Amino acid sequence: MKIAVLPGDGIGPEIVAEAIKVLAALELGLEMESAPVGGAAYEAAGHPLPEATLKLAQGADAILFGAVGDWKYDTLDRPLRPEQAILGLRKRLGLFANFRPAICYEQLVGASSLKPELVAGLDILIIRELTGDIYFGQPRGRRQATDGHFPGADEAFDTMRYSRPEVERIARVAFEAARKRSKRVTSVDKANVLETFQFWKDIVTEVHKDYPDVELQHMYVDNAAMQLVKAPKAFDVIVTGNMFGDILSDEASMLTGSIGMLPSASLNDKKQGLYEPSHGSAPDIAGKGVANPLATILSAAMMLRFSLGQPQAADRIEAAVKAVLAQGLRTPDIHSEGTTRVGTVQMGDAVVRAL
Amino acid sequence: MKIAVLPGDGIGPEIVAEAIKVLAALELGLEMESAPVGGAAYEAAGHPLPEATLKLAQGADAILFGAVGDWKYDTLDRPLRPEQAILGLRKRLGLFANFRPAICYEQLVGASSLKPELVAGLDILIIRELTGDIYFGQPRGRRQATDGHFPGADEAFDTMRYSRPEVERIARVAFEAARKRSKRVTSVDKANVLETFQFWKDIVTEVHKDYPDVELQHMYVDNAAMQLVKAPKAFDVIVTGNMFGDILSDEASMLTGSIGMLPSASLNDKKQGLYEPSHGSAPDIAGKGVANPLATILSAAMMLRFSLGQPQAADRIEAAVKAVLAQGLRTPDIHSEGTTRVGTVQMGDAVVRAL
Ligand SMILES: CC(C)[C@H](C(=O)O)[C@@H](O)C(=O)O
Ligand SMILES: CC(C)[C@H](C(=O)O)[C@@H](O)C(=O)O
Repeated sequence: MKIAVLPGDGIGPEIVAEAIKVLAALELGLEMESAPVGGAAYEAAGHPLPEATLKLAQGADAILFGAVGDWKYDTLDRPLRPEQAILGLRKRLGLFANFRPAICYEQLVGASSLKPELVAGLDILIIRELTGDIYFGQPRGRRQATDGHFPGADEAFDTMRYSRPEVERIARVAFEAARKRSKRVTSVDKANVLETFQFWKDIVTEVHKDYPDVELQHMYVDNAAMQLVKAPKAFDVIVTGNMFGDILSDEASMLTGSIGMLPSASLNDKKQGLYEPSHGSAPDIAGKGVANPLATILSAAMMLRFSLGQPQAADRIEAAVKAVLAQGLRTPDIHSEGTTRVGTVQMGDAVVRAL
Repeated sequence: MKIAVLPGDGIGPEIVAEAIKVLAALELGLEMESAPVGGAAYEAAGHPLPEATLKLAQGADAILFGAVGDWKYDTLDRPLRPEQAILGLRKRLGLFANFRPAICYEQLVGASSLKPELVAGLDILIIRELTGDIYFGQPRGRRQATDGHFPGADEAFDTMRYSRPEVERIARVAFEAARKRSKRVTSVDKANVLETFQFWKDIVTEVHKDYPDVELQHMYVDNAAMQLVKAPKAFDVIVTGNMFGDILSDEASMLTGSIGMLPSASLNDKKQGLYEPSHGSAPDIAGKGVANPLATILSAAMMLRFSLGQPQAADRIEAAVKAVLAQGLRTPDIHSEGTTRVGTVQMGDAVVRAL
């Protein structure tokens, strides 16, 4: 089993190092090879996703990804900016199914902005389509306006789009995932305004016929953004498009108050996957040894379960993370009175000990 | 001064009746004329926005709008559904500037999902562009996919777009509004992925040069959805496009916990405006006399201020609403222990008495 390790920028290298330590401690004989990505790759090789890095990723069973991005790359042309690496990997590897759990850990309930009773026990799974929608649709660019209130003016445009098989396969992923949970799926759309999402809604409804044991609910995206704040626990599995999923998965993860704890997985149809923390590269705290490595360690657990066929090893990691929380160890982002503040390396070491 | 009164569906007629009562009590000599809209208009005239209703709206100085929509119209073809009325009014009257305040009233802090310290004193103004973006962009429809992972498959698509003058004018609206507040604007985009919003960001930055006294911050939409949950009071004025504004303004209004209190205004370049509560038609409680009329009454206050040149009358209404809250009167949606539960009509009467 071969893993491509792409640490990236900011806190990426620090948190990925801890996840590797945990994987190594499991002695599964995993082969790991690193390559630069994002800003680090731009500096080393002039491109955020160099051909060698892409090759390594394509040839691996799974990719362990840190984070990319830093303010200092903001002035680069768009194709050279760090986030193009992540978009490129998604597109080139066909990583269409993004799993973003939003879980509120018992000991961290107090870190949420929401009242404890609204988030205690929260466990939502957002499934975001990741290779379609307005992210990659063509045409896009600049042109002269032909419609709108100012015909003839300069305008910029993008194309939102979904094809039938793209919606079908992500709907199946969601229904299958729901079968292993509480069997409820909320499909989020904007069918009252968009052709793309009327189509989405129709196809999800059709695919649902193959999953009569799963309950399906449709919800407009604006309402979903509200209901997540009002009563997040009413959701189980949420499935939606790339753009709405970007917004709602971030909203949902912030509801937990502990985004430093949340892993993610992006899979293709061969179960090859990219695993990364839900949080970003946090350049402001990079190199200080204070970043929370748990989201990355939990991403490694997802990797073992989804791409490497090692569910027991995944369970061991997840249990070890719960154990260190129970021991009261906390990085600064989740620290509160009465708990023990630790750094990135100490946290990784504690997980290894708890395995 | 002529007002077109469009009560609409669900609780629309009940809450609009209370707003009219309050306006009448001010004895401003306003001329009011009603017409059906939404599902009610479909039933009366076969179309959600009949020509006569549109004419009335076009000829008025302002429109007092209730709400539209009911599950029973879900099976109609899209062009006949109630929400097409609101989209049609926006487009035909050029109502490009949507003002959506998210205010947390002192007495209602406890109704929020968020911890009291995060929302006490909250006062955000979201300015949403309302006649451009993917809501109205052409082309849109169905076709054979040419790009994406399944060339040749059936697909649906929409066009996101903004022209330069559209972005310029909404940016000016936001900077002007910020000048009357704490002089901070957050422009929300997705410039890291979308051509449309790179263009948006560039133009907002340019227009900002005319407002050096106002502080401008740019934020990605996914981050904005998170920061609204984490620290909503860090925002003052938020300006964004039609689609992102739809999502973020609903998220922000739900943060207050009292969406039944939040008005909205949609203005064109002649200051003609449509005024409506931020909440919907709530068909489940329609006709029961329990709906909260305060958002509609506060929308009437916005109408007096923005379209009818009557700021003092607007102040009087807003003071009266604060007074009834201080008296402890609450409709069921905002009721809590120790306050007095009242119905729609009683609440309207109380506001009139407090004027
Ligand atoms: C960096 C950016 C392109 C990316 C996205 O919008 O998908 C990020 O926000 C994410 O959610 O992974
Ligand atoms: C009803 C719908 C078309 C509308 C919109 O999306 O703009 C509504 O959600 C709103 O925000 O006024």
